[in-house]
Amino acid sequence: MAPALDVPEEETAVPFNNTTSDEVAISKSKVTVVGSGNWGSVAAKLIASNTLRLASFHEEVRMWVYEETLPNGEKLTDVINRTNENVKYVPGIKLGKNVVADPDLENAVKDSNMLVFVTPHQFMEGICRRLVGKVKGHVEAISLIKGMEVKMEGPCMISTLISQQLGINCCVLMGANIANEIAVEKFSEATVGYRENREIAEKWVQLFTTPYFMVTAVQDVEGVELCGTLKNVVAIAAGFVDGLEMGNNTKAAIMRIGLREMKAFSKMLFPSVKDSTFFESCGVADLITTCLGGRNRKVAEAFAKNEGKRSFDELEAEMLQGQKLQGVSTAREVYEVLSHRGWLEFFPVFTTVHEISIGRLPPSAIVRFSVEGST
Amino acid sequence: MAPALDVPEEETAVPFNNTTSDEVAISKSKVTVVGSGNWGSVAAKLIASNTLRLASFHEEVRMWVYEETLPNGEKLTDVINRTNENVKYVPGIKLGKNVVADPDLENAVKDSNMLVFVTPHQFMEGICRRLVGKVKGHVEAISLIKGMEVKMEGPCMISTLISQQLGINCCVLMGANIANEIAVEKFSEATVGYRENREIAEKWVQLFTTPYFMVTAVQDVEGVELCGTLKNVVAIAAGFVDGLEMGNNTKAAIMRIGLREMKAFSKMLFPSVKDSTFFESCGVADLITTCLGGRNRKVAEAFAKNEGKRSFDELEAEMLQGQKLQGVSTAREVYEVLSHRGWLEFFPVFTTVHEISIGRLPPSAIVRFSVEGST
Repeated sequence: MAPALDVPEEETAVPFNNTTSDEVAISKSKVTVVGSGNWGSVAAKLIASNTLRLASFHEEVRMWVYEETLPNGEKLTDVINRTNENVKYVPGIKLGKNVVADPDLENAVKDSNMLVFVTPHQFMEGICRRLVGKVKGHVEAISLIKGMEVKMEGPCMISTLISQQLGINCCVLMGANIANEIAVEKFSEATVGYRENREIAEKWVQLFTTPYFMVTAVQDVEGVELCGTLKNVVAIAAGFVDGLEMGNNTKAAIMRIGLREMKAFSKMLFPSVKDSTFFESCGVADLITTCLGGRNRKVAEAFAKNEGKRSFDELEAEMLQGQKLQGVSTAREVYEVLSHRGWLEFFPVFTTVHEISIGRLPPSAIVRFSVEGST
Repeated sequence: MAPALDVPEEETAVPFNNTTSDEVAISKSKVTVVGSGNWGSVAAKLIASNTLRLASFHEEVRMWVYEETLPNGEKLTDVINRTNENVKYVPGIKLGKNVVADPDLENAVKDSNMLVFVTPHQFMEGICRRLVGKVKGHVEAISLIKGMEVKMEGPCMISTLISQQLGINCCVLMGANIANEIAVEKFSEATVGYRENREIAEKWVQLFTTPYFMVTAVQDVEGVELCGTLKNVVAIAAGFVDGLEMGNNTKAAIMRIGLREMKAFSKMLFPSVKDSTFFESCGVADLITTCLGGRNRKVAEAFAKNEGKRSFDELEAEMLQGQKLQGVSTAREVYEVLSHRGWLEFFPVFTTVHEISIGRLPPSAIVRFSVEGST
């Protein structure tokens, strides 16, 4: 008996013919998560709970894992597949028995028509190169990656990189989503940004939404993606304020000026970006949670406490157990864009964060310069 | 020799004729601060540093103090005038020798043409009644008070109450301004909201601005004032989330939904309210600082930790040493407005905060109901 479909049939859904019964094959979507850090693993957990529940998806969720050998000699993928836990990045959290870790990138994506990209952004160009010609037609993608690539011709968002390199449509999902909190099922919201096709956006919403993870869609890919990307730069600034023990008013002021720069930068690059996007979870809420508890804030606080005498690379290696800090590299990329376009003076928070992070200014400059520049 | 004027002459400036020389009297503005809690005292300190420096103001800043007898038998005003400190509300902070504490309200305002109102909002109706006919013509007012009066005919903002009762123009000043941080000169921003006269707004900006207190003016009295008022309700919600230890994503989500309700409520009451106001210090920044460190958040956290078994009145008396909690009474006033207009269902955060605070719902309802209602 064919299971009831929970969602309207989609034009782009790809038939997947491994039914063993005589019944008419149902167009089921198959999902692969490309990436398995803490956010990737938690995303796989969210998705896997829904593919079990919703008849329009294949139960199995494949997760591409950058293979590592653990201290006990076992392969990370073997441990994930045996225990259903990513013991390295989210220990103690069951991802679901239908999550299958796969160390082979091409194999992991070959049968899927919904690809979820969630790796550190600096790896995406290499991953895309390896996937060219390897993903099927009519595949849909979504990027959970914060960051951008700066090229000679200007900045390139990760969703654009994916779209251009692989020739597929790419949405984004961003929001107030500290992974470790979602892992233990504390309530969060998120925002899906889409370009034109509302139905695809709704399908992503459906794939991610759980009782503790509420997702809404807005038609503003660039706005949503730039929120997720740029907020990490503001979080570095907020971390400096924390490290300098300047108090909540100052932190709120720097966050506010930072939010204004996020909005201005996004709209100067993409005039289609909407103000209302900054009131969504991907905007003000993500900024808040990242500036309260995220890793960029935490390492920047340590940087300021050490008066800039220990580098971000050193602190990152010591404090983050292999996770990557996005804010510092994004600040450098934003600085390149601003410098190239002659906009540095209009973005004192962004500019000052970069100049502090490379040691050109002391951490205390974050207030002095951000405030002077913003008047 | 007439001192150089730092500001353009103002049409409404009142001549003040106590010059003892033969020179032409300069139109100097004289300032009275009505209120002397911690924010009132810190406001007097900011203002007093500027009246010393700027020739367009009389040096003396009068501060009306609700007289109290201290445990050692001395009058509070006597101690302030002897030590230049408000030993009760901001001990250890010099307000400036040109701040004169005055226990007599009518005397305190009689020579002034710039009145700064900064009392708990529930006292303002009584204060206005006492001042009717006692303030001179051409007097300008500014309100730093958060809250509103709910009357049969609808809500009445404090700035409107002052304008109507005293027949004078009234601006507002709101922002990310936890008083104790400004007292020790940590950097903050604030927003002046004005109705029509930009020059008056600029004069208030000049009176309050210091190197560590940056003020900007926007033409949106209601928007600025409602931001300052309503954020206290959201802070109560944020405090509940803290008390329940639900994490930063959840807190950010509730703050975001709360901000959206602030915007919607303000625009439904006053269609002239601007979206951009919510990006000013009075908007997102004040919301952030209040939800990170303010007294509403703190007492609400304690309320949730006690599972609502100890009332807000009891916790306020124990935790705030005589300061008043604005969020709970504002929540009740907002609830009355929403209830009267049939809007309760559109404002789940505001509604739920009130129902928790009166014991009708448990603190844990803050997420369950706010989220359900917002979908």
